[in-house]
Order: sequence, then C-alpha cells, then structure tokens
Amino acid sequence: MEKIDNNSVGIVTPKFFTFAEPPNEMILDSGQKLGPITLCYETYGQLNKKKNNAILILHALSGSAHVAGYHSPDDENPGWWDVMVGPGKAIDTNKYFVICSNIIGSCYGSTGPSSINPKTGKPYGLDFPVITIHDMVRAQKKLIDHLGISKLVTVIGGSMGGMQALDWCLQFPDVPESAIIIASCAEQSAQEIAFDAVGRNTIINDPDWENGNYYNKNKKLTGLAIARMIAHITYLSEEGMDKKFGRKLQYSKSYSYKIVNTEKDPNRDDFENKFEREFAVESYLAHQGKKFVDRFDANSYLYITKAMDYFDVAEKYGGGSLVKALKKIEAEILLISFTSDWLYSTAQAKEIIEALRINNKDVSYLEIKSQYGHDAFLLEKKSLTENKILSQAIKNFLSHAKIE
Amino acid sequence: MEKIDNNSVGIVTPKFFTFAEPPNEMILDSGQKLGPITLCYETYGQLNKKKNNAILILHALSGSAHVAGYHSPDDENPGWWDVMVGPGKAIDTNKYFVICSNIIGSCYGSTGPSSINPKTGKPYGLDFPVITIHDMVRAQKKLIDHLGISKLVTVIGGSMGGMQALDWCLQFPDVPESAIIIASCAEQSAQEIAFDAVGRNTIINDPDWENGNYYNKNKKLTGLAIARMIAHITYLSEEGMDKKFGRKLQYSKSYSYKIVNTEKDPNRDDFENKFEREFAVESYLAHQGKKFVDRFDANSYLYITKAMDYFDVAEKYGGGSLVKALKKIEAEILLISFTSDWLYSTAQAKEIIEALRINNKDVSYLEIKSQYGHDAFLLEKKSLTENKILSQAIKNFLSHAKIE
Repeated sequence: MEKIDNNSVGIVTPKFFTFAEPPNEMILDSGQKLGPITLCYETYGQLNKKKNNAILILHALSGSAHVAGYHSPDDENPGWWDVMVGPGKAIDTNKYFVICSNIIGSCYGSTGPSSINPKTGKPYGLDFPVITIHDMVRAQKKLIDHLGISKLVTVIGGSMGGMQALDWCLQFPDVPESAIIIASCAEQSAQEIAFDAVGRNTIINDPDWENGNYYNKNKKLTGLAIARMIAHITYLSEEGMDKKFGRKLQYSKSYSYKIVNTEKDPNRDDFENKFEREFAVESYLAHQGKKFVDRFDANSYLYITKAMDYFDVAEKYGGGSLVKALKKIEAEILLISFTSDWLYSTAQAKEIIEALRINNKDVSYLEIKSQYGHDAFLLEKKSLTENKILSQAIKNFLSHAKIE
Repeated sequence: MEKIDNNSVGIVTPKFFTFAEPPNEMILDSGQKLGPITLCYETYGQLNKKKNNAILILHALSGSAHVAGYHSPDDENPGWWDVMVGPGKAIDTNKYFVICSNIIGSCYGSTGPSSINPKTGKPYGLDFPVITIHDMVRAQKKLIDHLGISKLVTVIGGSMGGMQALDWCLQFPDVPESAIIIASCAEQSAQEIAFDAVGRNTIINDPDWENGNYYNKNKKLTGLAIARMIAHITYLSEEGMDKKFGRKLQYSKSYSYKIVNTEKDPNRDDFENKFEREFAVESYLAHQGKKFVDRFDANSYLYITKAMDYFDVAEKYGGGSLVKALKKIEAEILLISFTSDWLYSTAQAKEIIEALRINNKDVSYLEIKSQYGHDAFLLEKKSLTENKILSQAIKNFLSHAKIE
C-alpha cells in the first residue's frame, strides 16, 4: 500500500442513491419517464456544518464516479483524476467535500441501458429512453438535494463533463458559485457529430450487437472496439501521434506486405488478432479498442454520444443565440482549452467566452500549450507541465471561493 | 449534348494495355510477381511527332482513368477533373497529349483484387499481392513506354496522385520534366495511417466481407460504407462542415429522441436505413457511404489504403532522410496545399519544400486559401475561387515547359 500516501484520499467506497420511484419518475427532455433511477457516486473529504464547501466533479463520456483513491489495496490504478483530487491537491479534500456522480445512461453503477428494466426483469437495451446532458444534470441535482447541499463551490469537468458544468450554470443558476469548464463546448459541431455518428454506425452494424440485446451472451463487440479506435484518433493530436508512434512498426523492421494480419500473437487474444497491428499506431488503437470493450457497454456508448450530439446550449436556452442563452449565468467561470485539442478546440472555447463577455459576465480563460490533444486534461503523470499548469489554475481560481 | 461544348474533350473511350504476361511478370516491392497486368487508361489531345507533349495525370484513392469528357452522350457527369482538362483549360488538350492511367489494385478496369486470377479462374480476392505506390508507378512506366514516350512534360496529381507524381520523379528521374504535387505528402503520418487502419477494420470485421470472397454474392458491404464515412470526415474541414451542415436536422425541426433510426424513407433503400440520418451531416455521410459501395470494391480499398500507408519516400530512397531521398530529383516541382486541408496539411507540403530547397532544387509553392479541406483540389464548379487559382497556377507553371 506504499502508493496510498499522504496525498491520496486512500481507500474509497462507491455509494448509491435511488430516487424517482414510480409513480414519481423523472420526466426526461424527450418527454419519456425514467424511474427508479440509481446514481453511483463517490465523495472525498468532509462536508462542513454549513454545507457550503462542496465541489461537484462531472465526468466525461467513458468516465465513472471513481475520481480519486483506490477501491481496494490491490487496485493497480487510482481513480481517473487522482492527480487533481486529494489532500493538498488542486481540488483539496482537506478543504472541500468533493462529489462525483456517475451519469444516467452509463454502465458504472447508475441506471443505464444495461440496468434491469423493472417492467420486464431484463436489461433495458434499446428500451432505455434517450437522455440528454440536461437530464444527466437534473438527476445529479436530486443527489445534491439528497445530500442537503444547496450551494456548490464549483462544478468542474472536462469534455462532456464541461458540457454538464455549463448546463449546471444554466439549469440551476443559483446552485454553483463557479464553474470550471475544460476542453469542452457550448454545442457539438458538425464534425463532432460526424465522428460520433460513425462510431454509432460501427456498433449498430455489428451483428453481435443484436439490436442491443447482446447482454449475457458473452460477446465481444468488435463494433464498439472500432468506435473507440475512431474516437481515440480524435483524442490525440497529429503532432502527438507523430511523436509517440510516427511510422514505427510494431513487430518487424520491414513491411509485412500483408493485407490482413493472420499471425497469432501468444500475448494477445483472438479478438485483438482481428485488427491490423503492423504499424505501432495500429497496434495501439487495437489495444485501446479491446480494453474499452472489456470495460464499457456498447448501448451506453450509443446513448451517451447521442446525448452529446443533442447538446446545444444556444438552442436550449437562447432560442438559437448563445449570447441570449448565457445571459442567465450567475456563476464565475473559468474556461480552459489545450492548443492541440482539435476535437474541442480553442475556437469553441472562445465562442463561450465571447458570449459571456458580451453579457458582462465574470469569465477567465486559459489556453494551455500541449501536444496531447483532447487527452491533455486527463493525463495521469503529476510531473507533466500540463498537469502543473492545470492544477495551479484550478487552485488559484478556487482560492477566490468564499467559504464562511 | 449541350453540355459537351467547345471546352470539353467530348466523348472518350477507355483503352486497355496488357503486359507482364507470364513468365515475364512484374516483380513487386513485396518480392511477389504480378502478371498479366492490364491497365485501363484514357488519353485526350494528340501526341506530337516528337512525342514530347505528353502529360501524365495520376489519380487519387478512389479515382479512375476517366479524367475528362463523357463516355456516352447520356452520361450525367464528366470525368473527375473535367474542370482542369480540355481544350483551352489549365491542362490544355489543344497543346498537350494528356494520359491518365488507372492504378493497379483498383477496380476501374485495371488488374486488381476483383480481377480474375488466371491461376484459379476466380477473382483474386486476398490472393492479390500487396502493392505499393512504387509498383503503381512502375506499371504506369510500362504504359508510357508502350506509347513510345520517353519524356513527360509533367506528372500531376492530388492526394495519392501526388504521391505517385513524387515517386515518378524519384523512380524515373529522367522522364518527367516537371511535377505538380497537390494536397499530398512525402510519407503517411501516424494519423493518416490510423484513419486508414480504422477504415480497413470496418471492412474486415463486416461478416459480409467473408475474408475477401464476397464477389458475385450480391452483398452490399456496410463495412466499406462506414470506411468511406470515416474517410469523408477527413476530406472536409471542420469549418466547411459547420458552414455546409452545422447542426441542421435532416427530416424534422426537433430532435427525434431515437437511438436507432428505424423509420423507412421511401426514397432510400434498406441499406441506407441502417445508418443514422437525424442530423444533416449524418445523412450526408450515410449517402456518401452508400454511393461508394455502389461504385467501389472493398478489397481494392484495403489494398490501395495499405499502399498509401507504406508510402515513405525518406525510407525508400534516402535511408530515412527526406533530404537524401530528394537529392536525385531532376524535375522542376510545383507544390500546392490548401489552408484547411488537415489530412494532407500545409505542414506536410513544407517538409518536401524544405528538403528540396536544402538540395537547391527548383521548387515553387502555393498555399491556396480554402474552407473545403482536402476535397478542395477536386471541386467540380469552375467558378469557385479555388479552381480559378489552381487552374491559373497550373497554366503558369506549364507555360515554362519547353516543347520544341
């Protein structure tokens, strides 16, 4: 347990909150009802007596409630943002009560398409209703209410987490005192929708997906693996890929002159041999695809990417105008983007900043130089410059927070 | 036939040239033999007596020998670069004898995986040997020899056509007097390989592909359609996509809140209904995917993208150094890139220019401002600024050409 040092939140246990029991189901943006709803969440640090030291972390597409610490002493890796959350870290658990809730639609302990539909006793599959970012936030609000919290010091998240943070400021403008929106946007662009659409197509055209009814059939969904491969390209920058992989070959010094890799690698399973792995970058993507299938649910991927594609703050809150939409924001905003992030680019961050400035809102902006593309906000190494800058920016911003 | 005006080459007929008959097969880079080889080609204009007015056009991944004019009076569309090739056009068929040869590996009349393997009497499928850009050029050289041409005024091509143009200058440095390389590169980057690899994976994981033996089974390969969808995203720019599609919905004014589009559209076939088409950009990609399956061979797609991924001029000719590799170039070079092309970016063009300048070679460079991304070199509308600039640049460059 050497790794669980003074800067770690240590061993943590996921918690569960269930609400919206019939007949009081939650009404979704689609008009459909969902209930009961369970949210899996984790908390770190202590809620003070005034209940005014809470921070809510919002996770990205494939994230979970497990932000920091370890679930058991045998865990190899800590939570997904352990580098930012813990005693003395940027989000200081000595000072703040930190909450992260898994989103509805996910497969990490919250109600989603892989959950049992109480009406049928079987997994929802495609009977799960379509959800939106706003629905995710509405469900989280129930959790915050349940915890007796009426004000949040900040809401913070990257990528889809940033979308939720922005929505928190619009749907519940009197709850967050501030928001930190990282590598995100006010609406999915045509290109972002396009990449998501292609990923969904690889899933729904995979015969093993069986129209969403693949549960308990011990299938490894190739379509999901390929969807992840596509997404992974968009998470890295061209420069980063060139530096990391370039044209390196994975197994040999010369070209194989084979179209399909039929060689067996004793260290890899059949599933992975389905992919080409001649160039190092191909092998990396195949590995990422395989790992993802082992941990994520294909139907969740469909529902969550669709929720992202529907995200459009201007449309939802401003009748098509982002300036109008952001008028009702009361939270102080910190926006962060990364130079080489071409998925959620600096240009998209600047759209939000401009609309906020036109509204004379309190907004700070930081563009961090990085070669790591969209992934830059999720880097695990503490010593990386990106993490040092991000960490310091969050710390400085939070130092304004008033906790009486 | 109103459309066949004075600026059109008119009705053209593809020609065929067969060579490398056993036992004189062509030796490929892989060491394998291929023969007999048929190349489908078209020519426009007249070869002069000195046979020194020939221009060779090299096509891109999914291109064909049909560059200009019409195959019949009923043809709806002319060849793929009709805007550039014809009497009085940038590549003036009143002056030049213009040749375009389909590449080996393709499915447009030349020997490729869909051709009959004389050894089995069945389509080659995956028994087709792996080919390279250098092999494609080597085969074209046989055609040029056959036509009695020993010098080319220029070799010109975009994207993979640019790779071939560059290879012509290195493999046969005394043949082209000049080369025009458009939206191309000296080597595929990790990101380009990655996108190709994902496309190949969607094909080989499609059960209808049947390990390449899908011929004569009346299958519509979804995997190929998805590969094309992915590629299409890389052919457009983010800005161009936003201007063309934005977040427009295709069929309705409000979100469908459906994960899978099960609605039948009477104007579309079952195949297209497999794809999501809620956002206009999704519908566009689905349509592009479908159209591609109707016209292209999945195995050709595998072989040609692999040839592109293997393309690395520094490795092939310079022991890893691009400067060394380009030392043997004798042709005058014009390099052209487009500002919003992120697939074959200006940065990649500049690598070639720098290596040529270090070698004190004759090189001109033009970066054309465009929102159309990689597709910018293939726009069909004559009136577009990009086409006017490209047209004028080619004209000016060719005006240096000495034809005695």
